[in-house]
Amino acid sequence: MVAEDSRVVAEQLKRCGISMDEPELDALVRGLAASPAGDTAPLPFEGRLDEAARSALAAAVARERERYRDLLRPFDPARLQRLRSELHRQNLDGFVVPRADEHQGEYVPLRAERLAWITGFTGSAGVAVILADKAALFADGRYTLQAGAQVDARLFELHHLVDEPAADWIAANLPPEGRLGYDPWHVPPSQAERLEAAAVKAGGSLVPVSENPIDAVWADQPPPPLAPVVPHSDSYAGRSSAEKRQEVAAALAAERLDAAFVTAPESLAWLFNLRGGDVPFAPLPLGFVLVRGDGTADLFLDPRKMTADARAGLGTGVRVHDPEALEGVLGEIGAAGLRVGVDREGTPQRVVQMLRGAKVAWFADPCALPKARKNAVEQEGIRAAHRRDGAALCRFLAWLDRALAEGSVTESEAAQRLDEIRRQDPAYRGPSFPTIAGAGPNGAIVHYRGSPETDRPLEAGNLFLVDSGGQYPDGTTDITRTVAIGKPSDEMRARFTLVLKGHIALATAQFPKGTSGSQLDSLARRPLWEAGLDYDHGTGHGVGCFLSVHEGPARISKLPNRVALEPGMLLSIEPGYYQTGAYGIRIENLVLVQAAAIPSFLRFETVSLAPIDLRLIEPSLLSSGERTWLDAYHRHVRSTLAPLLAGADLAWLETASRPLDGA
Amino acid sequence: MVAEDSRVVAEQLKRCGISMDEPELDALVRGLAASPAGDTAPLPFEGRLDEAARSALAAAVARERERYRDLLRPFDPARLQRLRSELHRQNLDGFVVPRADEHQGEYVPLRAERLAWITGFTGSAGVAVILADKAALFADGRYTLQAGAQVDARLFELHHLVDEPAADWIAANLPPEGRLGYDPWHVPPSQAERLEAAAVKAGGSLVPVSENPIDAVWADQPPPPLAPVVPHSDSYAGRSSAEKRQEVAAALAAERLDAAFVTAPESLAWLFNLRGGDVPFAPLPLGFVLVRGDGTADLFLDPRKMTADARAGLGTGVRVHDPEALEGVLGEIGAAGLRVGVDREGTPQRVVQMLRGAKVAWFADPCALPKARKNAVEQEGIRAAHRRDGAALCRFLAWLDRALAEGSVTESEAAQRLDEIRRQDPAYRGPSFPTIAGAGPNGAIVHYRGSPETDRPLEAGNLFLVDSGGQYPDGTTDITRTVAIGKPSDEMRARFTLVLKGHIALATAQFPKGTSGSQLDSLARRPLWEAGLDYDHGTGHGVGCFLSVHEGPARISKLPNRVALEPGMLLSIEPGYYQTGAYGIRIENLVLVQAAAIPSFLRFETVSLAPIDLRLIEPSLLSSGERTWLDAYHRHVRSTLAPLLAGADLAWLETASRPLDGA
Repeated sequence: MVAEDSRVVAEQLKRCGISMDEPELDALVRGLAASPAGDTAPLPFEGRLDEAARSALAAAVARERERYRDLLRPFDPARLQRLRSELHRQNLDGFVVPRADEHQGEYVPLRAERLAWITGFTGSAGVAVILADKAALFADGRYTLQAGAQVDARLFELHHLVDEPAADWIAANLPPEGRLGYDPWHVPPSQAERLEAAAVKAGGSLVPVSENPIDAVWADQPPPPLAPVVPHSDSYAGRSSAEKRQEVAAALAAERLDAAFVTAPESLAWLFNLRGGDVPFAPLPLGFVLVRGDGTADLFLDPRKMTADARAGLGTGVRVHDPEALEGVLGEIGAAGLRVGVDREGTPQRVVQMLRGAKVAWFADPCALPKARKNAVEQEGIRAAHRRDGAALCRFLAWLDRALAEGSVTESEAAQRLDEIRRQDPAYRGPSFPTIAGAGPNGAIVHYRGSPETDRPLEAGNLFLVDSGGQYPDGTTDITRTVAIGKPSDEMRARFTLVLKGHIALATAQFPKGTSGSQLDSLARRPLWEAGLDYDHGTGHGVGCFLSVHEGPARISKLPNRVALEPGMLLSIEPGYYQTGAYGIRIENLVLVQAAAIPSFLRFETVSLAPIDLRLIEPSLLSSGERTWLDAYHRHVRSTLAPLLAGADLAWLETASRPLDGA
Repeated sequence: MVAEDSRVVAEQLKRCGISMDEPELDALVRGLAASPAGDTAPLPFEGRLDEAARSALAAAVARERERYRDLLRPFDPARLQRLRSELHRQNLDGFVVPRADEHQGEYVPLRAERLAWITGFTGSAGVAVILADKAALFADGRYTLQAGAQVDARLFELHHLVDEPAADWIAANLPPEGRLGYDPWHVPPSQAERLEAAAVKAGGSLVPVSENPIDAVWADQPPPPLAPVVPHSDSYAGRSSAEKRQEVAAALAAERLDAAFVTAPESLAWLFNLRGGDVPFAPLPLGFVLVRGDGTADLFLDPRKMTADARAGLGTGVRVHDPEALEGVLGEIGAAGLRVGVDREGTPQRVVQMLRGAKVAWFADPCALPKARKNAVEQEGIRAAHRRDGAALCRFLAWLDRALAEGSVTESEAAQRLDEIRRQDPAYRGPSFPTIAGAGPNGAIVHYRGSPETDRPLEAGNLFLVDSGGQYPDGTTDITRTVAIGKPSDEMRARFTLVLKGHIALATAQFPKGTSGSQLDSLARRPLWEAGLDYDHGTGHGVGCFLSVHEGPARISKLPNRVALEPGMLLSIEPGYYQTGAYGIRIENLVLVQAAAIPSFLRFETVSLAPIDLRLIEPSLLSSGERTWLDAYHRHVRSTLAPLLAGADLAWLETASRPLDGA
C-alpha cells in the first residue's frame, strides 16, 4: 500500500475510534485485497466505520487489489529458474506443486495459486512435478486444451492427470537417490503415500519441506486473505452451532475419539454457522477446527477476520485461536496421547506431524455427512432460492430469444446479462462458479471458460449451453440449459432427447435406502449408451447450502462411492453429450433426496425451475412416461414462476412450458 | 486305516511295482479320503495300477472316508471347553476362527472346517470369536436361519456378519490388555489390520499363533487332502502355461517386482494348466505359487499329489517344492531383499512374516485378470458345455412337468434327478456348487440347501426355484430357472415379470469400455425398485472355466468394484425377488462380455440355454423391446438344443420356447 493511502485510511479509522499502526493497517489492507473482490463482501469493523472511513478503506483495498490483477499472467520463465536454484539450496532434486492450499478445496485464495504462478496454467485442478532438468504438468481431460495453450511445452511436458498419473512419471523420472520435496501443508496423507511410493519406486525418497520453495522465490505473493467472517443466521441454518457440535461429538464418541481435526472450510462454516469470503465463488472462511468429544471446539482463524457479531454468535464452548497457536495446541494433544480422528483425504500431512504422540485414527470429516443432510429449514431456503434463481434464468432465456430475434449476441454478452439479471435480486451474493456459456463448438468443451480470444456469437443452427449458478443466503444454485439458436439439426434434436431421457430416468428413480450415487449413475447414461454415446464427466455432485457448489460426500458418478444417499441431500443431475468441434448438450437440475411413499425407499424432488427447450426435443423418442414427466415438470415450472414474471417474460414462460403435444 | 486294509492294499501296490511302507500308505489313504468324494476323481499312480490294485485302493479310501462322514455333526460342546483350556495354555484371552483355509477360497477341505467343528455351523461363510467367558458367531443374511438352527445360543451369541461386524464385537468385548489370538495362515493382511484395530480399540492386542489351538484339540482332524493333480489339456485351456507365465512376468516387470506370491488355487490351476480335487465343487489343487519376473515359477504342492502327466506337462521353468520348503524359499527371497508382490486380500499374513527382509508391495493376484479374460478356445468350450448343460436342464424341466402331471415330486427328488440327468454326459465332473432346489417358501431362502428336515413336495400354486450348475472340462455352468407348479397367482406372475425385465435390461446393455459391474447393477434392479421391491444379493458374479463357479475380480453388485468388464469375461446375471414364507424367484443366465459393433463399446452374449417359464410372464408388463428379446432368446434356445433332444423332451422344448404371442 502506498504511504499516502495508508495515512488517509489510518486517520479515518482513528476518527471512528480504531487505532492501528502503519504495518498493522498495511497487513490488513493487503489481506483484504488478497481475498476475492465481491461487491457484497463486508469490510471489518462492521458498524464502527462511518461512510467516509468505509469508503477510504474500500478504496485502499481496491487499489491494492489492482496490483494482484496480473499476478499470474503472463508467465515468466525466470520463475522456474529461481525455483530450481531454491531447490538446490534446500538440497532437493525436485518439488511437487499441487493446485491446492491447506484446505484441499476446489477454489483457493490468490496466495495459493502456486501452480499457476510456476507453470502459467490457471485451471482449477492439476499438479506439476519440477525436477532439476525437466518438469511435467498433469491436468485432467477438462483442461487439456487450456494447458496446451497456457504452458510452454519447452519447459513442461504435458500429461493427462488420470491416464498418465504424476506418480508414474515420478517413478520413471526421479533420479536414483533423488530427494523429491513436497509441502506437507498442501498434501493429505493419502496423497503423500502415493507420492512416497512413486519416489521409492524410482529409488529415491519423498521429503517434506519446512519452507515452501515457491513462497521463498515468489516476491509479490499475496498474504493469506482476511475477508471478514460473519454469522450465518440460525433462521437460514435451521440448527444452532451447539446442536451441530453435539451431533459431531456423538459421532466421535461412537469411535472412541477424543477429538477430530476438521480441514474443510465448508465444514468450519457449517459447524459454527459462519460465512466468510476468502476464496472466490463460495462464502468460505479459511481456518482449521479441532472438535472435541465434549462438544466444544478449537477454532484456528486469523482474529482480524472475526467480526464482533461472529464472535458473539459462537457462544461458550468455542475457543478461538490465532492460527499460529495450532502447533502448540496439537502438541498438547499429542503429549496427552489423545485419540484424534484425521481425514486421510483432506487433513494436511503437516497436521499429522504436529500430532506426534497422539493416537491418530483415519476418520472422515465428521461434518461432511450432517452438513449434506439439509434440514427442513435449509430445504425451504433451497426451494425459495431456486424459485428466485429460476425466475432470473427465465428472464434471461426470454431476453435471449428476444435479443437473438433482433440481432446478434455473443457468449460473453449473454453471460454478463445473466449475471446482471441475477443481481436484481438483493439477496444475490454472486455466482457460485464461473459461468459456462458455450456456443457451437465451445459448448462441447465441458468446463469451457470464456475469454476474449474464444468469445463467439450465437449463430443460427448452433446450440448454446449455459451452466451457471448463484449464491444466496438461503441456498446455492447450479443449473444448465441448452437452447437452440435458430433451427437445430435432426441429430442435435435426437441427441438432446437422449440426454433428456437419461435425465428423466434418474430424476424419476425410486431406490432403496443404502443406495449410493454410483449405483444410480448408469440410469442416466443408458439411453446414450444404447446409441453408442456417452459423456466424460460425472452425472451429479453434492451442493452446499450457501456454501460450495461442489460438496461431498455423496456424488452420482462412474467412480465407486460408498456414501448412501440420504433424505435432505442436495445433488445435481446433469447428463450431457458433446460433439467435439460442433456442439454441447447438458440438462442440469438440482434435486433433493426425499423419502418415497414406500417405506425404506427414496426418491428425488427436483428443485431447479426453468423450461427445457421444447425446440430440441424429438417427441417420438420419448416414452409415454417420459412425456408425462416433462409435461408435469413444465406445469410445475409455470405455476411456480408465473407469479414472479410479467410481460414479455411471462409470455415467454407460457410458450416455453407448454405441453409437448402442443409443441 | 485298519491294519487288514493296509496290508491288502500294500500287497496290491507291490504287485504293480509300487513299494510303500505302512505309515506312508496310511498317510496317503487318509489324505485321499480327506479330499471330497467324486466318482470321477482319479487315484494316484495313474496307468500303473491294474484293476485289482485300483479297486483295493479305492475301497480303502472309501472306508476311510466313511469315518469323516459325521466328523462335524452333531456338535459336541466339550470341544469349546477343550479349546478354552488350550487358549489358556497358550496365554490367549480369545481366538478368531474364520471359515477359511490358507487359500481364502469359498470351498475348503475337510481339515479346514474348523468353524463348523467348533460352533456346529456348517455355512460357507462366517467367523467366530471365542473369548474365555463368551463367544459369538457372525454369519451373513443367507445363513441367519441356518446358524440359529445349528448353533447352541447358550454357547454363542449370533450376530449379522455385515450389520454387526466381528470387529465391533471384539472392540466391545475383548477385555483390556486382552490377547486375541488368530492363525496367520488363515487371515490375509487386510483382515489382520481390521482385527488388530478392533483389539487395540478394546485396549488389547492381536497375537498371531504359531500352533492353531483348534488343531491342537481336534483329535480326529483330517490331514490335508491329497487328490491327484492332473493336466488340463491346452486344447481346453487355449494357451500354454509358459505363455501365461510370460504374461504374468510382464505384469511384474511393469511394477518392477521380482516376484509375486499367488495364494488362490484357481490361479495355480490356471497358470500351470493343472486341475485337482482337494475341495468340493471345483477341480482345485491346493498349493502356493511364487511367480518370478523371469517367467519361471516355484510351485509348493505335496509331491504325492502330482501325477507323472502333470509333472511332465510343467516343462522347464517350474520348480516343484514340498510345501515344507516354503519358509526356506521365502527366507532366501527376504535375505536377497527382492521386491515381492503380495495380495492384501488373499495372501496369508504368515507368508508376509516369512518374507521378512523382502520389499513387500501390495499387488493383486496377477493371474486373476488374465484368468477372467477367457480366450477364444475357452469361449468355444464354454459355449459347448452350455449346450450340453442346457439340454440336460431341458430334459430335467420336461421330466418335471411330466412327473408333476402324474404324481408328486419333492425338492430332493428333483435335485437328485437333475444330477442324474447331468451325469448322462460322460464329460460331467459333478455339480459346480450344491444345488438349490426350493419349493414354495424354501425358494425364498436365497442360499437354501435342502435337508431331510426341510424337504418339501412341489405343490400346485407354488413356485419352484432351481439354481444349479455343472463342472465340465470345457466349462463351468450355473443357471437358475423358476417354474410354476400348477397355476401361479397374479402377484407371482407380476413379480416374475419384473425380475425378467431386470434380467433383460442388463442382458441387452451396451456400455463403454472401462465400465465396471457395479455401474451396471442398477439396470437389473430398476424395474423392481419402481415397484418398491429389491433383492438382497448381488446381480452377478464371475465364473471360472472348469474352475470355481464364483471367481473375481469382476462382479455385478451394489458393492463398489473398480474392475472394468473386459471381452471374454464370463459372468452371471441373476436378479431375483423373494417373498419370505411364500416363494422365491430368480432368473439366471451366464453371459460372456464381447466387443459391441460400435468401437469402444461392449455388450453381453448370453451362453446359458433353457426356456424361461412363459406361464410366469405377464406379457402386458413387457415393452416391445423386451418381448423381442424374449422371443429371440427362445428361438435361439430351440434351434440350438432341438438337435440334442428327442421325443417328449423335444416336444416340451417346442412348447416351452414358443413365441410370447402364442403363449
